[in-house]
Amino acid sequence: MDEKLIKKIRSAEIICVGTELLMGHTLNTNAGYIARELAELGIPSYRQTVIGDNVDRLLLQIKESASRSDLVILTGGLGPTTDDLTMETAAKAAGLPMAFHEESYRALTKIFERFGRVMTENNMKQAVLPYPAEILPNTNGTAPGAMFDCPAPNDEDPQHAASLILLPGPPSEVVPMFTLSVRPILEELAPFRFRTAYVHLIGIGESAAETRVKDLIDAQINPTIAPYASEGECMFRVTQRIDTDQDPDLLTPMLDELKIRFGEHIYEIGTRSMKEVAYDLLLAGGKTISFAESCTSGMVSSELGDIPGASRVFTGSVISYDNRIKRDVLGVSDEILSSYGAVSEECALAMAQGCRDLMKTDIAVSITGIAGPEGGSDEKPVGLVYMAISDSEGTSVQKMQAVGNRMRVRRVTTLQVFNMIRKRLL
Amino acid sequence: MDEKLIKKIRSAEIICVGTELLMGHTLNTNAGYIARELAELGIPSYRQTVIGDNVDRLLLQIKESASRSDLVILTGGLGPTTDDLTMETAAKAAGLPMAFHEESYRALTKIFERFGRVMTENNMKQAVLPYPAEILPNTNGTAPGAMFDCPAPNDEDPQHAASLILLPGPPSEVVPMFTLSVRPILEELAPFRFRTAYVHLIGIGESAAETRVKDLIDAQINPTIAPYASEGECMFRVTQRIDTDQDPDLLTPMLDELKIRFGEHIYEIGTRSMKEVAYDLLLAGGKTISFAESCTSGMVSSELGDIPGASRVFTGSVISYDNRIKRDVLGVSDEILSSYGAVSEECALAMAQGCRDLMKTDIAVSITGIAGPEGGSDEKPVGLVYMAISDSEGTSVQKMQAVGNRMRVRRVTTLQVFNMIRKRLL
Repeated sequence: MDEKLIKKIRSAEIICVGTELLMGHTLNTNAGYIARELAELGIPSYRQTVIGDNVDRLLLQIKESASRSDLVILTGGLGPTTDDLTMETAAKAAGLPMAFHEESYRALTKIFERFGRVMTENNMKQAVLPYPAEILPNTNGTAPGAMFDCPAPNDEDPQHAASLILLPGPPSEVVPMFTLSVRPILEELAPFRFRTAYVHLIGIGESAAETRVKDLIDAQINPTIAPYASEGECMFRVTQRIDTDQDPDLLTPMLDELKIRFGEHIYEIGTRSMKEVAYDLLLAGGKTISFAESCTSGMVSSELGDIPGASRVFTGSVISYDNRIKRDVLGVSDEILSSYGAVSEECALAMAQGCRDLMKTDIAVSITGIAGPEGGSDEKPVGLVYMAISDSEGTSVQKMQAVGNRMRVRRVTTLQVFNMIRKRLL
Repeated sequence: MDEKLIKKIRSAEIICVGTELLMGHTLNTNAGYIARELAELGIPSYRQTVIGDNVDRLLLQIKESASRSDLVILTGGLGPTTDDLTMETAAKAAGLPMAFHEESYRALTKIFERFGRVMTENNMKQAVLPYPAEILPNTNGTAPGAMFDCPAPNDEDPQHAASLILLPGPPSEVVPMFTLSVRPILEELAPFRFRTAYVHLIGIGESAAETRVKDLIDAQINPTIAPYASEGECMFRVTQRIDTDQDPDLLTPMLDELKIRFGEHIYEIGTRSMKEVAYDLLLAGGKTISFAESCTSGMVSSELGDIPGASRVFTGSVISYDNRIKRDVLGVSDEILSSYGAVSEECALAMAQGCRDLMKTDIAVSITGIAGPEGGSDEKPVGLVYMAISDSEGTSVQKMQAVGNRMRVRRVTTLQVFNMIRKRLL
């Protein structure tokens, strides 16, 4: 890369280009991914912008961003179609010409050969790139990325130039390109370094959690504490800024204080999600698990199945939407179904036991409830869920009243299922 | 609302406030949701910005956005904690004082009573709001929203003022507030109106699809055609701008042309997703369905279960990660498992038949494959998937080679399963 770029990056921002993002047809996961990577690298990022495939607005945006930030990462608009204009527009902002790039052309030809597809004329465009630039190869798609300098003077520095990094739109291409090509470059350019810990809490709301550490937040200098809430759980990010690896450890005393204040609400100090914590406990204990899912209809199983290697602990599940399946496959008695109903402690217990017998796993978990929007009553409102867990020591049941729409009820229930597994295995 | 606001909105932008968004800890779904709503309303939106909980930067951003757009919708930062500063900052940008709002205070008190929780002092803050403003009640959370005028002269109009609309952060609060309070206001203020149709395609790539209609796109004036690609499928948005309902229908001739060019690649002209198309066909045909899932591990069942009323067609599923479940629960023979393996045509066929026998449904679908990243071989690479469908007319199997990581393989497979159901029911 250009010698001029070897300077510390004090600030970054992200521009995601694409009318499909601007119209809300595609969910923008790139901005969050890159933001997390920048945070890990210790590069402060202050802004994310979504803008359509419009040359004039994009050109203005690149110039504006380049003038106030040292690094501007763009995603999207590198595709082969006529509305993909990011590469030309960024080159224009930087005052660079476009030139045919032999190596990228050869890579493109190979991709089309491998998939046995015919290269259309508009694909050719993806081998025409700014010059000079550092070209970033794309091992998962046809569009190469690029990194180059964009002169953009500002009030403080008439020599100011931002580094532009252009990546394609599809997340499945962005992630490997960032990992292989971008991160190694940025690691050299980060201005500070951080020691960071994430403290994950369950069973306490964001507001109550913050109130409990208000004195620590008010007094914070280094390390800092920031609360984050997400669906059904919350988190504190504790960050110590360091100059060298020899700096004294200020994180551990703060984490110890949080442990005292939150006790069993803490399910993880690290980056694992609740399901990963549960999975690791299952793996460490050499336990197998199965599920009998009704209202979650496979969401718990699917979430566990997301984890590579899930099959080492996960045997299988029965999704029993229909009561007939609860009876015929899981062995829930007609008496339970008629006396207590499918959404009841009794049914949850019988489902878990039946599932464990059928699947022959060390642990079986059942979920039955009312996800809504229909099917609720005064006695059994929407959001009422029973979860039971069965192992060699017995079977126990837990009642929960979730709040929110169908999707939220199912997601919060899924989180609680993994929490129940975690608590059983601790 | 303020009389001054009764003017046509020519441009809008969205600002999402929250350090958790800026750091990438929370996925930004609000921007996309509001963008889609604005598009439906015929209000052009040109920009989405994510910014942290920082008063100075937020104030600058609001002023900048207000000066170039007629409408600025903000989400986030209305919570009770000390870093929630959007309401005060927006009031400051608009030059409005903050005042105690009796009605919002009463609503807050009621919410805490209903959940039997104690109101902390920082919750009180949510009843202190800009004055004068249109207060938007929040039926799903503690933070009310607000709408007010923000004077922001620009080069073209020294009298320019933008309408600011402030909404909370959680999507489960944003959606009902937008629907109940915001949309009715904006309907009156949209500058144009549109007739829009979405043409959803499967089995053809974005580049090939665009090439096939390049002449139409190059010649477009009204209606316009825009292509969008997402995982495993692509879409055209066809939009006719109209002045009155009496304008001649220019959409139908264009849709007829697209039908001729894409034929069976079109699975939907409308807003339904593939799974909704499959669900509606099942419902219309009075058919019940069950699944035997291996590599998708419940994702197909969970996706179908997302649809309210899914239980009308969906009986249940067996997730058979372990071969023992394929054999003992689904009745796949040892011979098939040992001679052909779990990932084979033969196993998929036996799983579908066994599932249909067990679940007693009209249709059963099986999925077995290698999601990766481990478990692949030269003969059976990662991404190889077999899907079989069984009904009273017989059982057939389909082979697919998916490309991408574990999540993508599972998601593209799930899409193809619903497509297979759709094709069987047509």
